[in-house]
Amino acid sequence: MTDLHVYDTTLRDGAQQEGLNLSVSDKLAIAGHLDELGVGYIEGGWPGANPKDTEFFARAATELRLRNATLAAFGATRRAGGAASSDPLVRALLDSQAPVVTLVAKSHAGHVERALRTTLEENLAMIRDTVGFLRGEGRRVFLDAEHFFDGYALDRAYALEAVRAAMESGAEVVALCDTNGGMLPDRIGEVVADVLGATSARLGIHCHNDTGCAVANSMAAVDAGVTHVQGTINGYGERTGNADLVTIVSNLQIKRGRQLVEERQLQEATRIAHAIAEVTNVPAYSRQPYVGSSAFAHKAGLHASAIKVDPDLYQHTDPKHVGNDMRMLVSDMAGRASIELKSRELGLDVAGDTETTERVLKRVKELELRGYTFDAADASFELLLRRELDELPDYFDVESWRVITDQRTDGEAVSEATVKLVAGGHRVVATGEGNGPVNALDHALRQALLPAYPELDQLELIDYRVRILDAAHGTDAVTRVLIETTDGSTSWETIGVAGNIVEASWHALVEGVTYGLIKAGVPVR
Amino acid sequence: MTDLHVYDTTLRDGAQQEGLNLSVSDKLAIAGHLDELGVGYIEGGWPGANPKDTEFFARAATELRLRNATLAAFGATRRAGGAASSDPLVRALLDSQAPVVTLVAKSHAGHVERALRTTLEENLAMIRDTVGFLRGEGRRVFLDAEHFFDGYALDRAYALEAVRAAMESGAEVVALCDTNGGMLPDRIGEVVADVLGATSARLGIHCHNDTGCAVANSMAAVDAGVTHVQGTINGYGERTGNADLVTIVSNLQIKRGRQLVEERQLQEATRIAHAIAEVTNVPAYSRQPYVGSSAFAHKAGLHASAIKVDPDLYQHTDPKHVGNDMRMLVSDMAGRASIELKSRELGLDVAGDTETTERVLKRVKELELRGYTFDAADASFELLLRRELDELPDYFDVESWRVITDQRTDGEAVSEATVKLVAGGHRVVATGEGNGPVNALDHALRQALLPAYPELDQLELIDYRVRILDAAHGTDAVTRVLIETTDGSTSWETIGVAGNIVEASWHALVEGVTYGLIKAGVPVR
Repeated sequence: MTDLHVYDTTLRDGAQQEGLNLSVSDKLAIAGHLDELGVGYIEGGWPGANPKDTEFFARAATELRLRNATLAAFGATRRAGGAASSDPLVRALLDSQAPVVTLVAKSHAGHVERALRTTLEENLAMIRDTVGFLRGEGRRVFLDAEHFFDGYALDRAYALEAVRAAMESGAEVVALCDTNGGMLPDRIGEVVADVLGATSARLGIHCHNDTGCAVANSMAAVDAGVTHVQGTINGYGERTGNADLVTIVSNLQIKRGRQLVEERQLQEATRIAHAIAEVTNVPAYSRQPYVGSSAFAHKAGLHASAIKVDPDLYQHTDPKHVGNDMRMLVSDMAGRASIELKSRELGLDVAGDTETTERVLKRVKELELRGYTFDAADASFELLLRRELDELPDYFDVESWRVITDQRTDGEAVSEATVKLVAGGHRVVATGEGNGPVNALDHALRQALLPAYPELDQLELIDYRVRILDAAHGTDAVTRVLIETTDGSTSWETIGVAGNIVEASWHALVEGVTYGLIKAGVPVR
Repeated sequence: MTDLHVYDTTLRDGAQQEGLNLSVSDKLAIAGHLDELGVGYIEGGWPGANPKDTEFFARAATELRLRNATLAAFGATRRAGGAASSDPLVRALLDSQAPVVTLVAKSHAGHVERALRTTLEENLAMIRDTVGFLRGEGRRVFLDAEHFFDGYALDRAYALEAVRAAMESGAEVVALCDTNGGMLPDRIGEVVADVLGATSARLGIHCHNDTGCAVANSMAAVDAGVTHVQGTINGYGERTGNADLVTIVSNLQIKRGRQLVEERQLQEATRIAHAIAEVTNVPAYSRQPYVGSSAFAHKAGLHASAIKVDPDLYQHTDPKHVGNDMRMLVSDMAGRASIELKSRELGLDVAGDTETTERVLKRVKELELRGYTFDAADASFELLLRRELDELPDYFDVESWRVITDQRTDGEAVSEATVKLVAGGHRVVATGEGNGPVNALDHALRQALLPAYPELDQLELIDYRVRILDAAHGTDAVTRVLIETTDGSTSWETIGVAGNIVEASWHALVEGVTYGLIKAGVPVR
């Protein structure tokens, strides 16, 4: 049986996502991560059509050391009425030096006539000529049959002709593309089975998520016999995105026992998916299957007591397979069991100490009644736990703070904050400006603490969320603020709740900084 | 054939999502939106187990006017060794007054013995006793067979016994739950078909998205014969979330011709999904199938010219079916119709005036690029339209404003605002205090305007929502503020967007007051 392989198109089709813009350096960094994950092929882009992609292949030749993957260049069949050997875009594919060329071709009679505006016969000639030429030049050729499933529905015979034309000219794989993403799994399975029977070509699959079924569609195709699976990391792509390779590989490998990457490579999936999210600057999706930060997080109090008995009763697979972790969320639905599990997770085990556990639980419930929520603020929960255990370092004492926001003469508003505190044995008065009261307070607080704690220079506030809790009272309501702080490698969430939004933000800022100091092992000065 | 129906569990299982916390008012607002979408059943929560849910059912009885949906209360079978009639949690289900009770019960032999810690026989007795008691009290009963698919794999005979016990005691539907979310579609289909054959019970399906297949799994179950489909709006839920009802309903209705809601209701899906996202304060997922803001967005390039020839070549369905729009990421062709429609609705019809419509459309696009959203701020849209039509009264001229927030000696924070403006021919300087900067500004602004416009005494600010738009930059990001103002009989929403949260709030406040004056027919003084 031919080995099943993974073909990644993050750098080409994934980059079509709204708001996603990759530099050549970004693409090289992502290619390195993909190689580490163990994908078989990395489609780098469309050389010739896009100067950035031409540069990518040029730099990849010297800068990229791939250990697992083979690089593929994407391009179209030659222009209608021309010859492949003299087509500048086909030439650019050769010039890219990529060992594999993936040609996109029409297999949908309507698209040939109405979008490409040529004859059905000429389109088949374009496929034969371009595949044949590239094979003659020593390249391996894959073919993406665009709009295949819609084309098959319109004119099955022509869609099959396109597959045969590619195969007979030497294409190694013909990937059937659900370009518009409207398919459902049962239909994919039927069509793949029919095409396999009718052509005996080696087939691949390329799905989009417009019906929320990209993963199931890809798996239905594998079940029906395709041996080449396309997708993108984190499901990046135009509209609703491409099929998420991380989920597909995890499903096939863990649930079906089909090996696609090595076990130790899959165990890096969570780290790699997040590292690539950092490069793309698209926030990671916490509910992403297998590798999302919430993928193995449990909140229900009902479950927590049972999870202590046997974690496998409440998780569909061991998160270690993909390098993720089970997490317990502390919330008002939680009971003592969640507090014990959570404290163990934090290395502050209180499981044996019933009195402390009860005190912490009582405190959590009190605070949640006032609007706190600890399931989204792990760091604040750890500080609460440390306070109850008398293990919270007293890094600084705040005397007072103040923020002024006003319109400048040019009409724009500016905020200025002053913080007075004692740290490292000295009283400090510091001022900070910002484009909002919280930004100004953040700057002033860090300014005041830096002399005693230069370690804080590493910290950065990266997310700020506000929620007004009792809508019925408008601005008289209680405000909940969640702040995410990073030290460059990891990040943590802290919470503040108060009637005054600025006061709530201040509490969350102070906790964010305090947690950062504890995490870095900084002593009280 | 029994009608297929939709059972929504956003308010119960959806609320298990990490970081999602719904107040009773939030739940009532979401229930109203779900009813508008046309779901058959709304599961409101677990009365008795959670004081907030008890309150929800009490308030729903008087405050919620459901036109389509039936309310369901969720709860567990009675405790082991007790009687349903004297079980306080079963009593609470009756007290909720919900016409449908959905009982969660174990059907997994391992869970019965290791998590519930009772005998297999007692668990069946708990099912029979609780279902029978509730039926005797005149309630319709649905049963959620928890961990059904895992239980079936472990001990098929016992899992089937649990289904039969429920059915024979009078349960109307037995929903098979993939509680841990590890299933794949083919397996779901096989098991459903077997259970249907073995029990002839009416079956339902409840899926989670841990393998990225929640939608496909739910559809496989429908194909195999279930007639009750559970899910949550926007796929909210614990871990990777529950099956997204919006996608399932759209797939079944548009791709399979199975009617679940009325066509005109489905056409509201995009608006409703986004309105609920505003209530939950979980940012809408732009890549969500059908209703995501990117779901029908095409990047300019290869597709753009072909789309002009025939949009159906490049979209899997007409976005109008779900109330979404195709968007070209450079120039939008949709939108004009909605502007014309909305202007007519506001009594400022611009439908005949192409030039004004184009100007308004351009302005809306510009502002939306900067973070505005007019779906949720009709009043601000009306002010924009009036500005373009030169029909915006000039009630007052703001000279400057300022807010100071600081800690008082007792530790609590207080805000004080000063506003300087000209109204009614006089320059006014007014000061207001508040428990936050926006509250203080609101007081100062109204204080300053009252001498010229005593009508403003009627207005009250009743809701205030904040969203940070570009999470990657933390407090340096753009802030969007939505404010709801009431005159005692109706209310209206205004929006402000700025780098500074206080400035954004100021803009929304000024618009809220201006709209209030227009609405009351107050002349410029």
